[in-house]
Amino acid sequence: MKLLIFSYLLVTEDGRKIIPNVKTLDYAKLWLQERKRRTFKRKILQKRLPVTQWLPKYSLDDAVGDLVAGITVGLTVIPQALAYAGIAGLPVAYGLYGSFLGCFVYIFLGSCKDVPVGPSAIVALLTYQAAQGSWQKSVLLCLLCGTVELAMGIFGLGFLIDFVSGPVSSGFTSAVSLIILTSQIKNILGITARGATFVEIWTQIFNNIGEARSADTILGLTCIVILLVMRLFTSFRIGPQEPVLRSRAQNVINKVIWVVGTSRNAILVIACCIMSMILHDHEGTPFKVIGYIPQGLPNFALPPIRLNSNETFTGKEETFVEIVKSMGSGLIVVPLISLMENIAICKAFANGKPVDASQELIAIGSANIANAFVQGFPGTGALSRGAVNHASGVRTPLSNIYSGSLVIISLIFLTPYFYYIPKATLAAIIIAAVVFMVEVKVVKPMWRAKKTDLLPGLSTFIACLILPLEIGILIGVGVNVLFILYHAARPKISTEVLNTSAGHEYLMITPDRCLMFPSVDYVRNLVTKQSLRCNVPVVIDASHIYGADFTAATVIESLLKDFATRQQLLFFFNLKPSICSIFESLSAEEFVVYYQEQQLDELLKERNYNPATSNLQV
Amino acid sequence: MKLLIFSYLLVTEDGRKIIPNVKTLDYAKLWLQERKRRTFKRKILQKRLPVTQWLPKYSLDDAVGDLVAGITVGLTVIPQALAYAGIAGLPVAYGLYGSFLGCFVYIFLGSCKDVPVGPSAIVALLTYQAAQGSWQKSVLLCLLCGTVELAMGIFGLGFLIDFVSGPVSSGFTSAVSLIILTSQIKNILGITARGATFVEIWTQIFNNIGEARSADTILGLTCIVILLVMRLFTSFRIGPQEPVLRSRAQNVINKVIWVVGTSRNAILVIACCIMSMILHDHEGTPFKVIGYIPQGLPNFALPPIRLNSNETFTGKEETFVEIVKSMGSGLIVVPLISLMENIAICKAFANGKPVDASQELIAIGSANIANAFVQGFPGTGALSRGAVNHASGVRTPLSNIYSGSLVIISLIFLTPYFYYIPKATLAAIIIAAVVFMVEVKVVKPMWRAKKTDLLPGLSTFIACLILPLEIGILIGVGVNVLFILYHAARPKISTEVLNTSAGHEYLMITPDRCLMFPSVDYVRNLVTKQSLRCNVPVVIDASHIYGADFTAATVIESLLKDFATRQQLLFFFNLKPSICSIFESLSAEEFVVYYQEQQLDELLKERNYNPATSNLQV
Repeated sequence: MKLLIFSYLLVTEDGRKIIPNVKTLDYAKLWLQERKRRTFKRKILQKRLPVTQWLPKYSLDDAVGDLVAGITVGLTVIPQALAYAGIAGLPVAYGLYGSFLGCFVYIFLGSCKDVPVGPSAIVALLTYQAAQGSWQKSVLLCLLCGTVELAMGIFGLGFLIDFVSGPVSSGFTSAVSLIILTSQIKNILGITARGATFVEIWTQIFNNIGEARSADTILGLTCIVILLVMRLFTSFRIGPQEPVLRSRAQNVINKVIWVVGTSRNAILVIACCIMSMILHDHEGTPFKVIGYIPQGLPNFALPPIRLNSNETFTGKEETFVEIVKSMGSGLIVVPLISLMENIAICKAFANGKPVDASQELIAIGSANIANAFVQGFPGTGALSRGAVNHASGVRTPLSNIYSGSLVIISLIFLTPYFYYIPKATLAAIIIAAVVFMVEVKVVKPMWRAKKTDLLPGLSTFIACLILPLEIGILIGVGVNVLFILYHAARPKISTEVLNTSAGHEYLMITPDRCLMFPSVDYVRNLVTKQSLRCNVPVVIDASHIYGADFTAATVIESLLKDFATRQQLLFFFNLKPSICSIFESLSAEEFVVYYQEQQLDELLKERNYNPATSNLQV
Repeated sequence: MKLLIFSYLLVTEDGRKIIPNVKTLDYAKLWLQERKRRTFKRKILQKRLPVTQWLPKYSLDDAVGDLVAGITVGLTVIPQALAYAGIAGLPVAYGLYGSFLGCFVYIFLGSCKDVPVGPSAIVALLTYQAAQGSWQKSVLLCLLCGTVELAMGIFGLGFLIDFVSGPVSSGFTSAVSLIILTSQIKNILGITARGATFVEIWTQIFNNIGEARSADTILGLTCIVILLVMRLFTSFRIGPQEPVLRSRAQNVINKVIWVVGTSRNAILVIACCIMSMILHDHEGTPFKVIGYIPQGLPNFALPPIRLNSNETFTGKEETFVEIVKSMGSGLIVVPLISLMENIAICKAFANGKPVDASQELIAIGSANIANAFVQGFPGTGALSRGAVNHASGVRTPLSNIYSGSLVIISLIFLTPYFYYIPKATLAAIIIAAVVFMVEVKVVKPMWRAKKTDLLPGLSTFIACLILPLEIGILIGVGVNVLFILYHAARPKISTEVLNTSAGHEYLMITPDRCLMFPSVDYVRNLVTKQSLRCNVPVVIDASHIYGADFTAATVIESLLKDFATRQQLLFFFNLKPSICSIFESLSAEEFVVYYQEQQLDELLKERNYNPATSNLQV
């Protein structure tokens, strides 16, 4: 064991191997041991407080990159925050409240440079479903989700999102995008429509379509078209294909085009806001506007932990326990989906480097807890702004300081002007963002790669559209987990009749995976069936059996008994010693394992095997 | 493919092989195809109506065996039926009502000779928990469970019990036995104690212990001792060890001892009943007796599908839907546990022959539906009577006709005498039966074989004691399923640095099982980590990868991209063609698979691999 560790360290520390051809170094195990060892070392600080990794090496280049990226993201987050507050069913100010303090926290704890913490469309919708548009509940939800995330991070439960497969994630995101899109149609039309699920909202829209306001509709549609066109700017370049061949002027123009494209949300909001202000007369504005936003920073205060009778929809007081109950599975699903979106950013730009899900949970958990104290609603690293951040050349999480500061500035100085922002413009911003999140293009490769994987994807998509989102995704994950269980329950078993070197026939039965309780009866039945058909010695090739449990041991015991009763020979080939000890501990009957093909003849000889007499036993 | 089928049939039909050394005949797949083919053949009749298999060959020996076994089981089922009705919280008559019609149905549909259909202790307790001691609900539950069982059988859902592992089943049975034992203590003490869970009942017993009646207590304890002693008779023999050496007289005496031991329940009930009758005076009996049982067969009638206000505990009318809702998960758990107990009998005496779970579901489902029309409560093949049946030399399911007839005779003629049966005697019968079902002895082999398997077993045991049973077993299965998911999520990956025949170093990474969504990120991180450490070409040995999904394909795609970006070589060794096509469908980058070790050098040469320059890239 010492030797193995030694050679392992030599391999891993300087990237070269010293002892060649050492078979099967179980690196995974050793890696775990080493990790344990490191836990109490200096590295743990760098891991848990990632700022200590990059701050000492912070350069001027980093500073410039972060400043540019931070301001670009800031210009994106302000209109998005206003818009996403609407998705959460809250006054627009709450969007801004949840967009600055968490950013500052993330600087110290975040492990991924591209993550801009703040409101996200998906999490906003989940917030609406869990808190039903009550700001008190949303803020409390923010605190609770932050706590759950922090706890999950500390206990290393980040692996839970491994159970959300690609298809389920695509189905979920697509459904959410459609729901958000649907929910914004009402703002484009200028009508009122409330509801949590897809079907509910569409019903409301059709009921109220007669009240559609033409001014809002025209403005909204125009804004969508403008945004989609401006979006093309981000990938539009003048001059030669190769960047190095372009002139300085061409480069500057390209940069300007790109900045305009990237800041399209902010530009559009400013333009529409000014237009709305100009068109404003004593009868009000021609458009529905977002209206009064209290000026200044929110109070730093404990989130409300109980609701008075005038703060609930039902008019009844609600205690902390009742509020938590009403949020239900949202308390698990919001953190998990937040993590999923956050990790999606990290992975997209990590260049294959491992992502530390636990640290990200700690970071966004702490950010949400902080946000809850300034009346923010749950947020995470939003995918759309993550892409902006990356494209703007972000270098470290410090970029968050600039976007956070921009939000603070806007809260202190700009809120009076926000009054005039048309709701239809914000709705257009949301629609132009989420329409690209409907992952239609993933269906084709899924169909090509593995058709059955469309099932969990489609189930999730449909379930999320017709049921509350958290139930929908749980159904999707459930369907997908059934695939694994089926896989565990029904191993493939190949059977072949072979000859030993001495010419004896024997039946070789090869199960292709571990023997766990759901599969053992199936394997037993198959082995029995095949063995009864060919009355020759049976060998179970256990090369692929890497795991077994107690139920498997009991079944192997009864198999051995059955074979002994009918005097048929049963051997195991290439059974791993660890599995061997599991099986042997139960077996009263003789339990024979061999590891080299030629040993089979000796075994048959020892047992006086005679094919002629054996065949007579049938 | 034709050839394979051909050789397969030759191997399987006459038990001999014609074409030697044909590699990897995928019998499992072919077996499925053949099964499909057979579905429309004569065999399907024999399978679905097993009576057609054994009745044409029915011999005199069979008739004698079935008669003896049927009467022995009949003598057991009558006292058990009376007792188990008490466990279900129902008047004793209902036990008998559920013990005859189902038997007759099973004769035609049952595939297992040892199964005696009727009330079972476990199912009776589940019935009590689902129907709360209302006879109307119990009978309706019987109908619904029968229907569920029948449907599950028709749709082939019998495999569901594969997901109840040995440890979970042991934990459940032990907990149920303890609960039943606990619930009978009150009858032994002659006190009143109501409650569904272990803790509830013990609380009640301690509260009411002061009211214990000495006559009942003494009778009950005496009965238990007598039963335990008589139980030893079943394995007690006089004369020489070897049966053939015994004299005729010795054999007769042994037989008598065995019959007395096996019929101990009936003998004890008759004795206690007579004693109770004799001691009976104008003040009543000294013991609590089971009291009046309506004489004659029950009416053949549709089970009640709604409850009037005077039939419910709450005094409110209950509609069909409300009753079904109140039964909740019982409608799934009762059928599954019934099947589990039934299959346990089949397996115990099948001598390794496959058991047809679907046919058994159809059989007990139909039996329960029939029973519901004569006011029976849910039943199944009871394990204790199954053992009696087998030991009495049962030959075919026809033995059920004798036990069923005995129940009918007792209903018509004997019920007036049943009045005097002391409750404490029935309680003693139950206790003496279930005390052996507490599977303490399974802990030691489980500890020896696989310690982690104690966890699902213990969880089930504890959860069943403190929660409703159906929740308890679901928790146990859930914990156990987590094992499978963990197994799927965290494959073992061994890594070794090897040399090609031309002397080039390369890193061989071997995952030991399928790549499914919960594990792919873990595998990717590990591969990336190891590959970055040793900057040599990397080979992923896919010999053990028998399955992959779309998520795996996306991760392989990003792995290929990462490797291409850092110009490290990545090859796949021995990847199955089916998996290959899944991976290839997504990969934009070059995707190289080879199947023979020596090919690696050619591949390296083609790509102009030079270790010296490669190492400089670190």
